[in-house]
Amino acid sequence: MLTKLLGALIAGLLLASLLAFRQETAPASGVPSYTSDGQLKLPEHYREWVYLTTGIDMSYNPALSSADHSMFDNVFVNPEAYKAFTQTGTWPDKTVLVLEVRGAQSKGSINQKGHYQGSDVMGLEVHVKDEARFPGKWAFFGFDNETSAKMIPQNMDCYTCHSEHGAVDTTFVQFYPTLLETAKKKGTLSAGYQKETSTKPPAK
Amino acid sequence: MLTKLLGALIAGLLLASLLAFRQETAPASGVPSYTSDGQLKLPEHYREWVYLTTGIDMSYNPALSSADHSMFDNVFVNPEAYKAFTQTGTWPDKTVLVLEVRGAQSKGSINQKGHYQGSDVMGLEVHVKDEARFPGKWAFFGFDNETSAKMIPQNMDCYTCHSEHGAVDTTFVQFYPTLLETAKKKGTLSAGYQKETSTKPPAK
Repeated sequence: MLTKLLGALIAGLLLASLLAFRQETAPASGVPSYTSDGQLKLPEHYREWVYLTTGIDMSYNPALSSADHSMFDNVFVNPEAYKAFTQTGTWPDKTVLVLEVRGAQSKGSINQKGHYQGSDVMGLEVHVKDEARFPGKWAFFGFDNETSAKMIPQNMDCYTCHSEHGAVDTTFVQFYPTLLETAKKKGTLSAGYQKETSTKPPAK
Repeated sequence: MLTKLLGALIAGLLLASLLAFRQETAPASGVPSYTSDGQLKLPEHYREWVYLTTGIDMSYNPALSSADHSMFDNVFVNPEAYKAFTQTGTWPDKTVLVLEVRGAQSKGSINQKGHYQGSDVMGLEVHVKDEARFPGKWAFFGFDNETSAKMIPQNMDCYTCHSEHGAVDTTFVQFYPTLLETAKKKGTLSAGYQKETSTKPPAK
Protein backbone atom coordinates (compact mmCIF):
# COMPACT_ATOMS: atom_id res chain seq x y z
CA MET A 1 0.00 0.00 0.00
CA LEU A 2 2.82 2.35 0.93
CA THR A 3 4.63 1.46 -2.27
CA LYS A 4 1.52 2.11 -4.30
CA LEU A 5 1.01 5.48 -2.66
CA LEU A 6 4.66 6.39 -3.16
CA GLY A 7 4.50 5.39 -6.81
CA ALA A 8 1.38 7.46 -7.37
CA LEU A 9 2.94 10.38 -5.51
CA ILE A 10 6.11 10.33 -7.61
CA ALA A 11 4.11 9.98 -10.81
CA GLY A 12 1.86 12.87 -9.75
CA LEU A 13 4.81 15.09 -8.91
CA LEU A 14 6.51 14.37 -12.20
CA LEU A 15 3.32 15.02 -14.13
CA ALA A 16 2.89 18.31 -12.29
CA SER A 17 6.50 19.32 -13.07
CA LEU A 18 6.02 18.42 -16.70
CA LEU A 19 2.87 20.49 -16.97
CA ALA A 20 4.39 23.39 -15.06
CA PHE A 21 7.47 23.29 -17.27
CA ARG A 22 5.35 23.13 -20.41
CA GLN A 23 3.30 26.10 -19.25
CA GLU A 24 6.39 28.08 -18.28
CA THR A 25 8.16 27.55 -21.57
CA ALA A 26 5.20 27.91 -23.89
CA PRO A 27 3.76 31.35 -23.16
CA ALA A 28 4.62 32.37 -26.69
CA SER A 29 2.48 29.82 -28.48
CA GLY A 30 1.36 31.21 -31.76
CA VAL A 31 -1.95 29.46 -32.36
CA PRO A 32 -4.22 32.23 -33.64
CA SER A 33 -7.03 33.10 -31.28
CA TYR A 34 -10.27 34.89 -32.16
CA THR A 35 -13.03 36.75 -30.35
CA SER A 36 -16.61 35.44 -30.60
CA ASP A 37 -17.33 37.97 -33.36
CA GLY A 38 -14.38 36.79 -35.46
CA GLN A 39 -11.75 39.38 -34.60
CA LEU A 40 -8.16 38.24 -34.20
CA LYS A 41 -6.78 38.68 -30.71
CA LEU A 42 -3.37 40.36 -30.62
CA PRO A 43 -0.76 37.67 -29.91
CA GLU A 44 0.33 38.81 -26.46
CA HIS A 45 3.92 37.56 -26.48
CA TYR A 46 4.91 38.23 -30.08
CA ARG A 47 8.07 40.08 -28.98
CA GLU A 48 9.33 36.75 -27.60
CA TRP A 49 8.68 34.95 -30.90
CA VAL A 50 11.33 34.36 -33.55
CA TYR A 51 12.59 37.53 -35.20
CA LEU A 52 12.80 37.56 -38.99
CA THR A 53 13.95 40.99 -40.08
CA THR A 54 13.74 44.76 -39.87
CA GLY A 55 13.36 47.31 -42.64
CA ILE A 56 13.29 51.09 -42.55
CA ASP A 57 11.05 53.34 -44.68
CA MET A 58 10.41 50.56 -47.19
CA SER A 59 7.91 51.25 -49.96
CA TYR A 60 7.00 49.83 -53.33
CA ASN A 61 6.00 53.29 -54.48
CA PRO A 62 9.02 55.43 -55.41
CA ALA A 63 6.79 58.50 -55.75
CA LEU A 64 5.45 58.23 -52.22
CA SER A 65 6.61 61.22 -50.23
CA SER A 66 8.41 60.32 -47.03
CA ALA A 67 6.60 60.72 -43.76
CA ASP A 68 7.97 63.47 -41.55
CA HIS A 69 10.07 60.93 -39.72
CA SER A 70 11.52 57.50 -40.37
CA MET A 71 9.86 54.26 -39.32
CA PHE A 72 11.24 50.81 -38.65
CA ASP A 73 9.29 47.59 -39.41
CA ASN A 74 10.14 44.53 -37.29
CA VAL A 75 8.79 41.10 -38.28
CA PHE A 76 8.20 38.20 -35.87
CA VAL A 77 6.76 34.72 -36.39
CA ASN A 78 5.44 32.13 -33.93
CA PRO A 79 8.19 29.61 -33.04
CA GLU A 80 6.22 26.56 -34.24
CA ALA A 81 5.86 28.03 -37.74
CA TYR A 82 9.52 29.11 -37.80
CA LYS A 83 10.63 25.60 -36.92
CA ALA A 84 8.44 24.12 -39.66
CA PHE A 85 9.81 26.63 -42.20
CA THR A 86 13.41 25.70 -41.43
CA GLN A 87 12.48 22.08 -42.13
CA THR A 88 10.24 22.50 -45.20
CA GLY A 89 10.93 25.95 -46.68
CA THR A 90 7.29 26.96 -46.38
CA TRP A 91 4.65 27.92 -43.81
CA PRO A 92 2.46 25.42 -41.96
CA ASP A 93 -1.20 25.98 -41.08
CA LYS A 94 -1.58 28.35 -38.08
CA THR A 95 1.39 30.52 -39.05
CA VAL A 96 1.17 33.97 -37.49
CA LEU A 97 3.42 36.76 -38.77
CA VAL A 98 3.48 40.05 -36.85
CA LEU A 99 4.72 43.32 -38.36
CA GLU A 100 5.53 45.90 -35.69
CA VAL A 101 6.08 49.50 -36.79
CA ARG A 102 8.25 51.68 -34.53
CA GLY A 103 9.22 55.31 -34.82
CA ALA A 104 12.91 55.92 -35.53
CA GLN A 105 14.89 58.29 -33.37
CA SER A 106 18.24 59.80 -34.26
CA LYS A 107 20.02 61.93 -31.66
CA GLY A 108 19.66 60.57 -28.15
CA SER A 109 22.02 59.45 -25.39
CA ILE A 110 25.41 59.04 -27.06
CA ASN A 111 23.98 58.44 -30.53
CA GLN A 112 24.71 61.16 -33.09
CA LYS A 113 24.03 59.51 -36.43
CA GLY A 114 21.74 56.98 -38.07
CA HIS A 115 18.58 55.75 -36.35
CA TYR A 116 17.51 53.63 -33.42
CA GLN A 117 14.07 52.40 -32.34
CA GLY A 118 11.89 54.42 -30.01
CA SER A 119 9.38 53.22 -27.43
CA ASP A 120 6.28 54.10 -29.49
CA VAL A 121 4.68 51.34 -31.50
CA MET A 122 3.10 53.18 -34.44
CA GLY A 123 1.38 50.18 -36.00
CA LEU A 124 0.79 46.43 -35.73
CA GLU A 125 -0.27 44.21 -38.60
CA VAL A 126 -0.78 40.47 -38.48
CA HIS A 127 -0.82 37.95 -41.34
CA VAL A 128 -2.40 34.63 -40.37
CA LYS A 129 -2.56 31.30 -42.15
CA ASP A 130 -5.67 29.47 -41.00
CA GLU A 131 -6.68 27.16 -43.81
CA ALA A 132 -10.08 26.08 -42.50
CA ARG A 133 -11.10 29.63 -41.64
CA PHE A 134 -10.12 31.81 -44.61
CA PRO A 135 -11.07 31.08 -48.24
CA GLY A 136 -7.60 32.09 -49.46
CA LYS A 137 -5.95 30.31 -46.50
CA TRP A 138 -4.36 33.60 -45.31
CA ALA A 139 -5.82 36.81 -43.88
CA PHE A 140 -4.53 40.23 -42.80
CA PHE A 141 -5.49 42.10 -39.65
CA GLY A 142 -4.54 45.71 -38.88
CA PHE A 143 -4.58 46.56 -35.16
CA ASP A 144 -5.54 50.01 -33.96
CA ASN A 145 -5.58 48.86 -30.36
CA GLU A 146 -3.71 46.21 -28.37
CA THR A 147 -6.65 43.86 -27.99
CA SER A 148 -8.22 42.66 -31.24
CA ALA A 149 -8.67 43.59 -34.88
CA LYS A 150 -11.15 42.97 -37.69
CA MET A 151 -9.98 41.13 -40.77
CA ILE A 152 -8.93 43.34 -43.69
CA PRO A 153 -11.41 42.59 -46.51
CA GLN A 154 -10.13 40.18 -49.12
CA ASN A 155 -10.62 42.62 -51.98
CA MET A 156 -7.90 44.93 -50.63
CA ASP A 157 -4.64 45.35 -52.52
CA CYS A 158 -2.48 43.71 -49.87
CA TYR A 159 -3.89 40.29 -50.81
CA THR A 160 -3.17 40.55 -54.53
CA CYS A 161 0.25 42.14 -53.99
CA HIS A 162 1.34 39.42 -51.53
CA SER A 163 -0.05 36.75 -53.81
CA GLU A 164 1.71 38.06 -56.92
CA HIS A 165 5.04 39.11 -55.41
CA GLY A 166 5.58 37.13 -52.21
CA ALA A 167 8.59 34.83 -52.59
CA VAL A 168 7.00 31.98 -50.60
CA ASP A 169 3.30 31.21 -50.11
CA THR A 170 2.11 34.87 -50.38
CA THR A 171 4.70 36.12 -47.86
CA PHE A 172 7.67 38.43 -48.48
CA VAL A 173 10.38 35.93 -47.64
CA GLN A 174 12.65 37.83 -50.08
CA PHE A 175 13.03 40.38 -47.25
CA TYR A 176 13.70 37.76 -44.52
CA PRO A 177 17.41 37.10 -45.10
CA THR A 178 17.82 33.83 -43.19
CA LEU A 179 14.58 32.28 -44.50
CA LEU A 180 15.29 33.30 -48.11
CA GLU A 181 18.36 31.04 -47.98
CA THR A 182 16.21 28.21 -46.62
CA ALA A 183 13.60 28.66 -49.36
CA LYS A 184 16.30 28.61 -52.04
CA LYS A 185 17.71 25.36 -50.65
CA LYS A 186 14.29 23.73 -50.32
CA GLY A 187 13.13 24.90 -53.74
CA THR A 188 9.98 26.59 -52.44
CA LEU A 189 10.25 29.99 -54.15
CA SER A 190 7.03 30.98 -55.94
CA ALA A 191 6.85 31.01 -59.73
CA GLY A 192 6.03 34.73 -59.69
CA TYR A 193 9.04 35.61 -57.58
CA GLN A 194 11.36 33.43 -59.63
CA LYS A 195 10.18 35.06 -62.85
CA GLU A 196 10.66 38.52 -61.31
CA THR A 197 14.21 37.81 -60.15
CA SER A 198 15.28 36.04 -63.34
CA THR A 199 14.35 39.01 -65.49
CA LYS A 200 15.57 41.68 -63.09
CA PRO A 201 18.10 40.59 -60.45
CA PRO A 202 17.70 42.41 -57.14
CA ALA A 203 19.88 45.53 -57.06
CA LYS A 204 22.18 46.02 -54.08
CA MET B 1 5.76 -6.00 -6.32
CA LEU B 2 3.73 -5.35 -9.47
CA THR B 3 2.52 -2.04 -8.06
CA LYS B 4 6.07 -1.04 -7.24
CA LEU B 5 7.24 -1.88 -10.73
CA LEU B 6 4.30 -0.04 -12.28
CA GLY B 7 4.97 3.02 -10.11
CA ALA B 8 8.63 3.01 -11.09
CA LEU B 9 7.72 2.56 -14.75
CA ILE B 10 5.29 5.48 -14.76
CA ALA B 11 7.76 7.65 -12.89
CA GLY B 12 10.50 6.70 -15.35
CA LEU B 13 8.34 7.44 -18.36
CA LEU B 14 7.32 10.81 -16.99
CA LEU B 15 10.90 11.72 -16.21
CA ALA B 16 11.94 10.72 -19.72
CA SER B 17 9.15 12.86 -21.23
CA LEU B 18 10.15 15.79 -19.07
CA LEU B 19 13.79 15.52 -20.12
CA ALA B 20 12.89 15.03 -23.79
CA PHE B 21 10.60 18.05 -23.67
CA ARG B 22 13.24 20.15 -21.97
CA GLN B 23 15.80 19.18 -24.58
CA GLU B 24 13.45 19.89 -27.44
CA THR B 25 12.46 23.32 -26.22
CA ALA B 26 15.88 24.49 -25.07
CA PRO B 27 18.10 24.29 -28.15
CA ALA B 28 18.76 27.98 -27.83
CA SER B 29 20.24 27.89 -24.35
CA GLY B 30 22.47 30.87 -23.85
CA VAL B 31 25.02 29.63 -21.35
CA PRO B 32 28.35 30.95 -22.66
CA SER B 33 30.69 28.24 -23.87
CA TYR B 34 34.46 28.58 -24.33
CA THR B 35 37.22 26.73 -26.17
CA SER B 36 40.09 25.22 -24.14
CA ASP B 37 42.22 28.30 -24.91
CA GLY B 38 39.59 30.69 -23.58
CA GLN B 39 37.90 31.80 -26.78
CA LEU B 40 34.14 32.27 -26.76
CA LYS B 41 32.25 29.89 -29.03
CA LEU B 42 29.70 31.60 -31.26
CA PRO B 43 26.22 30.91 -29.82
CA GLU B 44 24.87 28.71 -32.60
CA HIS B 45 21.17 29.50 -32.27
CA TYR B 46 21.29 33.21 -31.46
CA ARG B 47 18.81 34.02 -34.25
CA GLU B 48 16.20 32.05 -32.26
CA TRP B 49 16.88 34.02 -29.09
CA VAL B 50 14.85 37.01 -27.95
CA TYR B 51 15.16 40.03 -30.23
CA LEU B 52 15.81 43.38 -28.56
CA THR B 53 16.19 45.98 -31.30
CA THR B 54 17.64 47.11 -34.62
CA GLY B 55 19.48 50.30 -35.48
CA ILE B 56 20.81 51.59 -38.77
CA ASP B 57 24.10 53.47 -39.28
CA MET B 58 24.27 54.42 -35.59
CA SER B 59 27.39 56.20 -34.40
CA TYR B 60 28.46 58.28 -31.44
CA ASN B 61 30.83 60.19 -33.69
CA PRO B 62 28.99 62.82 -35.77
CA ALA B 63 32.17 63.49 -37.80
CA LEU B 64 32.55 59.88 -38.89
CA SER B 65 32.02 59.66 -42.63
CA SER B 66 29.39 57.15 -43.67
CA ALA B 67 30.49 53.86 -45.12
CA ASP B 68 29.69 53.43 -48.80
CA HIS B 69 26.51 51.63 -47.87
CA SER B 70 24.16 51.45 -44.92
CA MET B 71 24.34 48.77 -42.23
CA PHE B 72 21.72 47.40 -39.85
CA ASP B 73 22.57 46.21 -36.30
CA ASN B 74 20.26 43.55 -34.80
CA VAL B 75 20.55 42.70 -31.09
CA PHE B 76 19.55 39.35 -29.54
CA VAL B 77 19.77 38.02 -25.97
CA ASN B 78 19.54 34.51 -24.55
CA PRO B 79 15.96 33.75 -23.39
CA GLU B 80 16.98 33.00 -19.77
CA ALA B 81 18.59 36.45 -19.40
CA TYR B 82 15.63 38.15 -21.10
CA LYS B 83 13.22 36.50 -18.69
CA ALA B 84 15.31 37.57 -15.70
CA PHE B 85 15.48 41.15 -17.04
CA THR B 86 11.70 41.37 -17.35
CA GLN B 87 11.45 40.36 -13.69
CA THR B 88 14.31 42.39 -12.19
CA GLY B 89 15.19 45.15 -14.65
CA THR B 90 18.81 44.02 -14.86
CA TRP B 91 20.97 41.23 -16.28
CA PRO B 92 21.71 37.96 -14.48
CA ASP B 93 25.04 36.15 -14.57
CA LYS B 94 25.56 34.29 -17.90
CA THR B 95 23.81 36.93 -19.97
CA VAL B 96 24.87 36.76 -23.63
CA LEU B 97 24.04 39.67 -25.95
CA VAL B 98 24.71 39.23 -29.67
CA LEU B 99 25.05 42.17 -32.09
CA GLU B 100 24.59 41.09 -35.70
CA VAL B 101 25.58 43.54 -38.43
CA ARG B 102 23.86 43.13 -41.82
CA GLY B 103 24.31 45.04 -45.03
CA ALA B 104 21.29 47.15 -46.05
CA GLN B 105 19.83 46.84 -49.53
CA SER B 106 17.47 49.31 -51.15
CA LYS B 107 16.02 48.45 -54.54
CA GLY B 108 15.12 44.79 -54.88
CA SER B 109 11.97 42.80 -55.67
CA ILE B 110 9.10 45.26 -55.30
CA ASN B 111 10.95 47.56 -52.90
CA GLN B 112 11.79 51.03 -54.26
CA LYS B 113 12.57 53.09 -51.18
CA GLY B 114 14.16 52.78 -47.75
CA HIS B 115 16.24 49.75 -46.77
CA TYR B 116 15.84 46.07 -46.02
CA GLN B 117 18.31 43.51 -44.70
CA GLY B 118 20.50 41.48 -47.02
CA SER B 119 21.81 37.95 -46.61
CA ASP B 120 25.38 38.97 -45.77
CA VAL B 121 26.33 39.15 -42.11
CA MET B 122 29.06 41.82 -42.02
CA GLY B 123 29.94 41.48 -38.35
CA LEU B 124 29.13 39.68 -35.11
CA GLU B 125 29.97 40.97 -31.65
CA VAL B 126 29.09 39.34 -28.37
CA HIS B 127 28.89 40.88 -24.89
CA VAL B 128 28.98 38.29 -22.11
CA LYS B 129 28.36 38.55 -18.38
CA ASP B 130 30.32 35.80 -16.65
CA GLU B 131 31.05 37.04 -13.16
CA ALA B 132 33.49 34.34 -12.07
CA ARG B 133 35.46 34.54 -15.32
CA PHE B 134 35.98 38.25 -16.07
CA PRO B 135 37.37 40.79 -13.57
CA GLY B 136 34.84 43.42 -14.67
CA LYS B 137 32.06 40.77 -14.83
CA TRP B 138 31.49 41.51 -18.55
CA ALA B 139 33.63 40.93 -21.66
CA PHE B 140 33.39 41.68 -25.39
CA PHE B 141 34.23 39.31 -28.22
CA GLY B 142 34.45 40.28 -31.90
CA PHE B 143 33.95 37.38 -34.30
CA ASP B 144 35.77 37.26 -37.62
CA ASN B 145 34.61 33.71 -38.25
CA GLU B 146 31.54 31.67 -37.27
CA THR B 147 33.32 29.47 -34.76
CA SER B 148 35.05 31.30 -31.92
CA ALA B 149 36.60 34.65 -30.97
CA LYS B 150 39.24 35.99 -28.62
CA MET B 151 38.21 38.37 -25.88
CA ILE B 152 38.66 42.06 -26.71
CA PRO B 153 41.29 43.37 -24.24
CA GLN B 154 39.86 45.20 -21.26
CA ASN B 155 41.77 48.39 -21.96
CA MET B 156 39.79 49.00 -25.16
CA ASP B 157 37.39 51.93 -25.39
CA CYS B 158 34.25 49.79 -25.65
CA TYR B 159 34.56 48.85 -21.96
CA THR B 160 34.81 52.42 -20.64
CA CYS B 161 32.11 53.70 -23.01
CA HIS B 162 29.66 50.98 -22.02
CA SER B 163 30.49 51.48 -18.36
CA GLU B 164 30.02 55.26 -18.48
CA HIS B 165 27.02 55.50 -20.80
CA GLY B 166 25.14 52.18 -20.65
CA ALA B 167 21.67 52.71 -19.15
CA VAL B 168 21.71 49.39 -17.24
CA ASP B 169 24.72 47.42 -15.99
CA THR B 170 27.12 48.57 -18.77
CA THR B 171 24.64 47.75 -21.55
CA PHE B 172 22.87 50.16 -23.92
CA VAL B 173 19.34 49.45 -22.73
CA GLN B 174 18.47 53.03 -23.76
CA PHE B 175 18.38 51.65 -27.32
CA TYR B 176 16.26 48.56 -26.45
CA PRO B 177 12.78 50.09 -26.43
CA THR B 178 10.86 47.39 -24.55
CA LEU B 179 13.56 46.85 -21.91
CA LEU B 180 14.05 50.57 -21.33
CA GLU B 181 10.46 50.72 -20.10
CA THR B 182 11.14 47.76 -17.78
CA ALA B 183 14.28 49.39 -16.36
CA LYS B 184 12.38 52.62 -15.71
CA LYS B 185 9.67 50.71 -13.83
CA LYS B 186 12.15 48.66 -11.83
CA GLY B 187 14.39 51.67 -11.04
CA THR B 188 17.54 50.05 -12.40
CA LEU B 189 18.82 52.85 -14.63
CA SER B 190 22.49 53.65 -13.96
CA ALA B 191 23.49 56.89 -12.23
CA GLY B 192 25.54 57.91 -15.28
CA TYR B 193 22.62 57.47 -17.66
CA GLN B 194 20.19 59.24 -15.35
CA LYS B 195 22.55 62.21 -15.05
CA GLU B 196 22.97 62.30 -18.85
CA THR B 197 19.23 62.25 -19.53
CA SER B 198 18.34 64.73 -16.80
CA THR B 199 20.68 67.37 -18.21
CA LYS B 200 19.96 66.67 -21.87
CA PRO B 201 16.68 64.90 -22.70
CA PRO B 202 16.96 62.59 -25.71
CA ALA B 203 16.02 64.38 -28.92
CA LYS B 204 13.44 62.77 -31.15
